[in-house]
Amino acid sequence: MPVTTIEWENDHIRMIDQTRLPLELVHLKIDKVEVLAEAIKSLRVRGAPAIGVAGAFGILLGIQNHADEDREGFFKLLEETAIYLNATRPTAVNLSWALNRMQAVANSNAGQDVPSLKQMLRNEALEIWEEDRRTCRALGQHGQALLEDGSRILTHCNTGALATADYGTAIGVVFAANEAGKKVHVYADETRPLLQGARLNVWELMNEGIDVTLICDNTAAAVMQKGEIDCCIVGADRIAANGDTANKIGTYNVAVLAEKHNIPFYIAAPYSTIDFNITGGDQIPIEQRAPEEVTEGFGRRTAPPNTKVYSPAFDVTPNDLITAIITEAGVIYPPFEANLRARTSQTKSQNPR
Amino acid sequence: MPVTTIEWENDHIRMIDQTRLPLELVHLKIDKVEVLAEAIKSLRVRGAPAIGVAGAFGILLGIQNHADEDREGFFKLLEETAIYLNATRPTAVNLSWALNRMQAVANSNAGQDVPSLKQMLRNEALEIWEEDRRTCRALGQHGQALLEDGSRILTHCNTGALATADYGTAIGVVFAANEAGKKVHVYADETRPLLQGARLNVWELMNEGIDVTLICDNTAAAVMQKGEIDCCIVGADRIAANGDTANKIGTYNVAVLAEKHNIPFYIAAPYSTIDFNITGGDQIPIEQRAPEEVTEGFGRRTAPPNTKVYSPAFDVTPNDLITAIITEAGVIYPPFEANLRARTSQTKSQNPR
Repeated sequence: MPVTTIEWENDHIRMIDQTRLPLELVHLKIDKVEVLAEAIKSLRVRGAPAIGVAGAFGILLGIQNHADEDREGFFKLLEETAIYLNATRPTAVNLSWALNRMQAVANSNAGQDVPSLKQMLRNEALEIWEEDRRTCRALGQHGQALLEDGSRILTHCNTGALATADYGTAIGVVFAANEAGKKVHVYADETRPLLQGARLNVWELMNEGIDVTLICDNTAAAVMQKGEIDCCIVGADRIAANGDTANKIGTYNVAVLAEKHNIPFYIAAPYSTIDFNITGGDQIPIEQRAPEEVTEGFGRRTAPPNTKVYSPAFDVTPNDLITAIITEAGVIYPPFEANLRARTSQTKSQNPR
Repeated sequence: MPVTTIEWENDHIRMIDQTRLPLELVHLKIDKVEVLAEAIKSLRVRGAPAIGVAGAFGILLGIQNHADEDREGFFKLLEETAIYLNATRPTAVNLSWALNRMQAVANSNAGQDVPSLKQMLRNEALEIWEEDRRTCRALGQHGQALLEDGSRILTHCNTGALATADYGTAIGVVFAANEAGKKVHVYADETRPLLQGARLNVWELMNEGIDVTLICDNTAAAVMQKGEIDCCIVGADRIAANGDTANKIGTYNVAVLAEKHNIPFYIAAPYSTIDFNITGGDQIPIEQRAPEEVTEGFGRRTAPPNTKVYSPAFDVTPNDLITAIITEAGVIYPPFEANLRARTSQTKSQNPR
């Protein structure tokens, strides 16, 4: 049973501190929005869908102690909290999607009193969390139909339960194949600089008894050259209307390698990751990470002092390198622009079109 | 002035312990062949040409205390020492090339007494060291003609002074361009698992005041996509007669990316790296490294216990992805099979044809 990454308990968030994995499974109790913001920035919780859920719960933290008699101040605080949380990470659209959805509930019930608004927001946040769980399972079912018994899958970054509320996107597909009785094998890119593949994907897969081999990111090419990969499945942090996909740095590299070796390259992501407001990947903001994540990421300095580092958190894979996008509404093939819009998500989770 | 990586001093080897860089510049004094073997295996000295020089000096360590009156035992010890050292690392052909060359000197002077043989071997080892220095400078001159003022070069692994006696191959080309007054910029792949790019290339380039930006290996694709790379220059551990090239794991990945982005991809290597005895890259033995280099490479465990790891030290880039091979005898273009054989090295350093 995959772990529950994040959930709401009474008046606080209970979530796994992913920076402590795989050595320690530590749950954090977070009851302040500032503590949550730090946790998002420092990747204690990460993965686009999980960040969306965290954002919704963060709104609850922000407003729960506000005085019941102050309606005007309540809406001001709600907006400030959303802006504050939205600034924590710029690329994953799921965060702004969840925050917008929470604000929309309040705004469309502007006549209600504060206790009622608090209750509605609480229900909406829990619904976002529940939807994420349903979405991942639906996505996993659609995706696993693409795999066969014995399939060998390359993954990049963590896209399992830890990247969502509790089941995963790309690794959710692997879980679903495993549950369907298919013996699959995963090659997990370690995913520099923060090693989410090594620390998190490998941990999740081993927990489920799924055969997994860890490789350095630069080794995927050699493994493909040997004919050891049947398909690549990765997640997404934001998908433009035309299918261009921002995902963890190195994803574009994998896509180029897959094209060279005629290997299917799949994106697995919920509709909440699709940003129909932008037409192409060049409009996706790319977060830059701190140089120290590269130069002293393992607790020991591994480059000279004052080394200049270029460390974008994400890259953009152009749609022509993507075989299909696996969503909760089915497997979407090119042309993505038309086919993404044509399909309706079974949930409310899609972004505005 | 690039550092001197390895040299012979009276009766011992003086060399930099590359595992301590970039934090500490420590010189080792090695006077036992077993200590040298450990140093090669654990990459205190690495880089194909440097390993070749180390092998030649290792022969001197092995035989220098042998009794002058025992000629028969001397040849036996010489052969045993060569076999012992040759087993330390299987891929770089420069090691067996240097050991063969040392043995050939003794064998072709089999009638001489032991003190004379010792002197001849000493001269040959010093000649191998001197040749390496001349070879790198000639190679650098040929290569730098390919660069322009402002060229942006992607490197993978360390191929500087630390990979040779004292100047370098791919980075030697960069040094030569810099000495010729061209302002070039290097993007250095960090090169997992052992980060020779981050630890060694960046250190060498910064020491020479050359502009360098460190990137994770998986980031090269995004940098190329942005149009920031004008050419790739990498080293080689063994080149087959047809030009197929074994080099640090991830090199084939870089070659595929260069092809996709129409960027010239150069190998920089001395003729001693060419193995005319094998017709293609599939015949090059590929060394497997210990899983711990990936899972706990920096003093902290970063994957679950018992993680299965695939960690080849090298991959093979097929000749059709290689724009040219930069050697001390000039820049060799395809067809490599004919053109590598046609050119004569200015040194004695080529392998048998």
